[in-house]
Amino acid sequence: MLQPFNDEYFMKKALEEAQKAFERGEIPVGVVVVINNQIIARGHNLTETLNDVTAHAEMQAITAAASFLGGKYLKDCTMYVSLEPCQMCAGALYWSQISKLIFAAEDEQRGYRKTGVKLHPKTQVKSGILADEASALLKRFFIEKRNLN
Amino acid sequence: MLQPFNDEYFMKKALEEAQKAFERGEIPVGVVVVINNQIIARGHNLTETLNDVTAHAEMQAITAAASFLGGKYLKDCTMYVSLEPCQMCAGALYWSQISKLIFAAEDEQRGYRKTGVKLHPKTQVKSGILADEASALLKRFFIEKRNLN
Repeated sequence: MLQPFNDEYFMKKALEEAQKAFERGEIPVGVVVVINNQIIARGHNLTETLNDVTAHAEMQAITAAASFLGGKYLKDCTMYVSLEPCQMCAGALYWSQISKLIFAAEDEQRGYRKTGVKLHPKTQVKSGILADEASALLKRFFIEKRNLN
Repeated sequence: MLQPFNDEYFMKKALEEAQKAFERGEIPVGVVVVINNQIIARGHNLTETLNDVTAHAEMQAITAAASFLGGKYLKDCTMYVSLEPCQMCAGALYWSQISKLIFAAEDEQRGYRKTGVKLHPKTQVKSGILADEASALLKRFFIEKRNLN
């Protein structure tokens, strides 16, 4: 059966990236950037591995997508990310003028919407796609982390 | 005469970085990160050169400082930056838990304070050091840019 290219399909790809982060002991957040149904960038959180607070999945994917496109604006691109972006990543998305942001789980504590950060007026936002799967992975990570300490 | 290590001294170093950005045709913003009177990271805006909206001076310097320190938190560090950080860079500074942020010129349009972004509670903020010099460089950049178009 052909797999349709819809929001769930691409969010699953973002969750596969989140799973990679999980397996590295990183807070499991994953992302893909899509243009015309083609994935042009993937990323997962690497802040611990790289010792770098800027190494969120979204930041890496913005850089990679711009590199693929040969231009810094992510026009006609959609970012699928498993968790609501933080204020840093939302700030980067603002500069990128990305066309669409779709996130799975909400981040009530550190999500950009709570901080007052604005995305670019050109950016449409949708949330909740595979939110339960994304939240379950995050919860499993923090439970395992707690049990290790 | 010995040059004292004070805020003006280090902000001058940040302005030297801004000048490098200017010479590359980049919006002239420069930064240094200092610990115990030692500069451990320098950076200037490279968004055009790298085709990457995340390549602000501050982002590069946070990554470089963490790499120097071997840890992702910028404890006991001071960032000197020639312009008030945007919401992305302020978001990165939040995660870094940097001890002190000192900026020269205010950014009334895109500065983080207007957006509501919060820095980390551990971060002290000071502004206005060499603000006139930093503003003059920015103004000169935009005047030259306008005249070229």
